[in-house]
Amino acid sequence: MPDAPAHLPDISDLEDARRQIAKAAVVTPLIENPWLNRKLGFRLLLKAEVMQRTGSFKFRGAYNRISRLSEDERKRGVVAFSSGNHAQAVAAAAQLNGTKAVIVMPLDAPTIKVANTRGYGAEVVQYDRYTEDREAIGRRIAAERGSILVPPYEDRHVIAGQGTLGLEIAEQAQALGVVPDAVVCNTSGGGLTAGVALAISARLPKTAIFACEPDNLDDTRRSLEGGTRVANAPNVRSICDALMTEIPGEMTFAINRRLLKGALVVTEAEILTAMATAFRDLKVVIEPGGAVSFAAALAGRVPGKPACVVAIASGGNVDPAIFARAITGH
Amino acid sequence: MPDAPAHLPDISDLEDARRQIAKAAVVTPLIENPWLNRKLGFRLLLKAEVMQRTGSFKFRGAYNRISRLSEDERKRGVVAFSSGNHAQAVAAAAQLNGTKAVIVMPLDAPTIKVANTRGYGAEVVQYDRYTEDREAIGRRIAAERGSILVPPYEDRHVIAGQGTLGLEIAEQAQALGVVPDAVVCNTSGGGLTAGVALAISARLPKTAIFACEPDNLDDTRRSLEGGTRVANAPNVRSICDALMTEIPGEMTFAINRRLLKGALVVTEAEILTAMATAFRDLKVVIEPGGAVSFAAALAGRVPGKPACVVAIASGGNVDPAIFARAITGH
Repeated sequence: MPDAPAHLPDISDLEDARRQIAKAAVVTPLIENPWLNRKLGFRLLLKAEVMQRTGSFKFRGAYNRISRLSEDERKRGVVAFSSGNHAQAVAAAAQLNGTKAVIVMPLDAPTIKVANTRGYGAEVVQYDRYTEDREAIGRRIAAERGSILVPPYEDRHVIAGQGTLGLEIAEQAQALGVVPDAVVCNTSGGGLTAGVALAISARLPKTAIFACEPDNLDDTRRSLEGGTRVANAPNVRSICDALMTEIPGEMTFAINRRLLKGALVVTEAEILTAMATAFRDLKVVIEPGGAVSFAAALAGRVPGKPACVVAIASGGNVDPAIFARAITGH
Repeated sequence: MPDAPAHLPDISDLEDARRQIAKAAVVTPLIENPWLNRKLGFRLLLKAEVMQRTGSFKFRGAYNRISRLSEDERKRGVVAFSSGNHAQAVAAAAQLNGTKAVIVMPLDAPTIKVANTRGYGAEVVQYDRYTEDREAIGRRIAAERGSILVPPYEDRHVIAGQGTLGLEIAEQAQALGVVPDAVVCNTSGGGLTAGVALAISARLPKTAIFACEPDNLDDTRRSLEGGTRVANAPNVRSICDALMTEIPGEMTFAINRRLLKGALVVTEAEILTAMATAFRDLKVVIEPGGAVSFAAALAGRVPGKPACVVAIASGGNVDPAIFARAITGH
């Protein structure tokens, strides 16, 4: 297995990120339901990252990046493109660090995410997900205003920030006296998965790490199998608005192909069932894209008859109508 | 202010309960949303007791009582009457302690609570809340089978068990470096409120404690004002199925009249709004009866312009249709 290229984050970047975000980010709880565990036949620990500031893990990476801006950069402001969770995170981190944020969001982003992004004081520029190129719009705004682009995952500090979630999992598992057989992680661009993989491979080297995807957005699974990055079909529609990235990132895939054991996929029905199970048995609100790894664990998709699995509830910013549909039977 | 009568629990009973339940109960998190705090103009900390085993605080008291049964008593089993949360708690605590449970539940108890109670291995006997007397049914079963009645609140060990929640609040507030101006607590029979009041008055003596009730089930408010126990109107219907007790308990009222600063009331609309706010801003699921004190805090009903309020989300066992109604606009 080759060493990681020098521009990629390593465990010392994660430790540094942990110190950097400590004052602003929440150490989210690792929760379980003994009755659910008994029904499943293994211990399922859920990292309730829905309780993170702005309702998703994205705050970790955004804050780690934006809090490192120079004074000159802070005056120029930041820009980001995002379907919603990165948007809210960049907006909130910008506000906390005294800089302006412009966020490029798709027209069909969940209402709650657009409203929250504006609530954190950001300017929102909307575009059509199916006909316009969000990266081009973001780059144009950055060029016009001189503002700093905060990428959703292709950035050393962003990946390291997301990895702090993995450091917490390792510590919380150790506090419970358990070594998980697997950590399963929701995957889209791959920033969270890469960060968590860096943390878990360093701190819990016997624990397998799996990417988890909806079965119609399985670019990471197919990329891992082929050994090279391949894209999703264009214009796929999904309830997982948070996971609609075109192709794994270059940096994130370089980490993930080295550290992951594989990828697991789930159906939309399994995702809705996982949201209903979290509602009933754990009392936490998870959005569709945040429930994928929990769904994979519940569906028994983790190979090798595990005794303990950690799943990550990575976001909870779901429109009420979709949540109501998930819990009242779909 | 007179001393508490000797048969009532005191702070040493709570400390003892803490040790007794430590292996089985969850130390539930104290959560907040900085953005919500800014909107409210004060710091609102929510004790997310919905994540307790069986989905409510009732597990603390039930486990503290049932784990103290003698071997002979364990052989005879336990009986309890409850609209649902005490039922599930007694069923689960009985199962963990290797004894049988019979639970007397109203016919209109939420489906999820009846199903969960059976799921913990208990026998459920149902009755009509509006025409039959659950205490009489419970006592008859106890007499016929020789089983031990586990009261929902009129019991030293039950009150002490609920009080462990207050001990945790005091420690968690201290860890955050804050002395709350007020702790507000959902109140029905008064066991949770009495236990929390014992803990908070001992550990945070400058913090005011308030009971919180739906405005049509305000027996504790009227009892505190009159200085003697008065009952609710008969056959009140409420979305707060967990709070439908006839009158404050004798033991609990003896504690509460001594230690509470007063009682706050909220409307059903305010309760539904609080459930929606918890869904959107804190990502936790709260049942109507568990959201009363959070509703009172959100509605700005805590007197004296507080800088920090702790509210207790005491239970999360809500039927999906009611939760869907709360979050999609009522």
